[in-house]
Amino acid sequence: MSQIDIQESIYKRNDELAAELNQEFTCRGIYCVNVLGAPGVGKTSTLIRLLPLLNALAAVIEGDIESDIDTEKLKKLGIQAYQVNTHGACHLETPVIQQAADALGLKAGFLFIENIGNLVCPAEFVIGEHMKLLITSVTEGSDKPYKYPLAFEKADAILINKVDLAPYVDFDEAYYLKGVRALNPNAQVFRISARNDEGIREVATWLNHRARPEA
Amino acid sequence: MSQIDIQESIYKRNDELAAELNQEFTCRGIYCVNVLGAPGVGKTSTLIRLLPLLNALAAVIEGDIESDIDTEKLKKLGIQAYQVNTHGACHLETPVIQQAADALGLKAGFLFIENIGNLVCPAEFVIGEHMKLLITSVTEGSDKPYKYPLAFEKADAILINKVDLAPYVDFDEAYYLKGVRALNPNAQVFRISARNDEGIREVATWLNHRARPEA
Repeated sequence: MSQIDIQESIYKRNDELAAELNQEFTCRGIYCVNVLGAPGVGKTSTLIRLLPLLNALAAVIEGDIESDIDTEKLKKLGIQAYQVNTHGACHLETPVIQQAADALGLKAGFLFIENIGNLVCPAEFVIGEHMKLLITSVTEGSDKPYKYPLAFEKADAILINKVDLAPYVDFDEAYYLKGVRALNPNAQVFRISARNDEGIREVATWLNHRARPEA
Repeated sequence: MSQIDIQESIYKRNDELAAELNQEFTCRGIYCVNVLGAPGVGKTSTLIRLLPLLNALAAVIEGDIESDIDTEKLKKLGIQAYQVNTHGACHLETPVIQQAADALGLKAGFLFIENIGNLVCPAEFVIGEHMKLLITSVTEGSDKPYKYPLAFEKADAILINKVDLAPYVDFDEAYYLKGVRALNPNAQVFRISARNDEGIREVATWLNHRARPEA
């Protein structure tokens, strides 16, 4: 069996497991969001602002190579959280999400999976989610859609975080959005600041509706 | 052959090729720097400030998943640059560096390889370099050494970029440095701003000496 065959079968097996897990989540009334973004873009900070504004219970699976810093931060705020450490691996895969979801004993509501901070590899793997939420920031620069297209292509919603820092950096929003739209005409785009709460309510309203469109 | 065997043999073969390429660089008087860092941390911007202060010719191999934005930027400034696109792959490996180095027709001096923007995978692969230069930033937060230890462990020098934004973010430098030192007691750490040139001369002086300690 060649390396390529093995890689293809890894993707295929993961896709099958992810589809099963997604169905299980759906049947149990759990709406699962796969949160993607580069290191330090503000994934945990955004969740801390966002979760209190959702209209259902929300739990978090925290993916990190090492450390439980973010899980401890969330737990201190009374948010149900579970740490997954990959000890080197650059993305999360479905089996570990299945285990974490079992360990959390989830009830109906939202499940956020904060993937490994990496704008490349996590975009290649579905892990049971109903949607992908990509977090980017003005401090990263406006050329990211052009350089890391897959994450932008796959995202259902894209947050532009740290807009409070926009006056101090050269973020060309028109150029950024042009890149986003060339890859993904349908993604919802929100300008937010996890530091001062700007735009967070709009994201929550959109997510509440997306998870329960009938409500 | 199992997946793990194949992975081990990929690492081993890459290491052998990297050692050969490194020797070739050394013999030709080329000092090769593997530049690591997350997306948008300022790898290209730092090189643009740094290269004019070096005491030898410098060329750049630009690694990106897609786009030639950075190579075009460097060429417009008169810097010799060569674009490598991985079309999805999350890090650079030795064979493509060998090809790029041949295409550049390098003379003695510095060769900077700007790796894919990714704080995880590139740290696992040597690609012929004499040293690794890790670029981080105050806007990424101070917990990065704890979450992405391998890149910090392997770095010979670590730049803390975007210090001009320090007044507007909560970067805890003592906590960051404690994390760095636990992983890597010897790395040189520099505070820089590729926006306003702060600290760049100190990095250049250190690199000039590192590349030619006898000079």
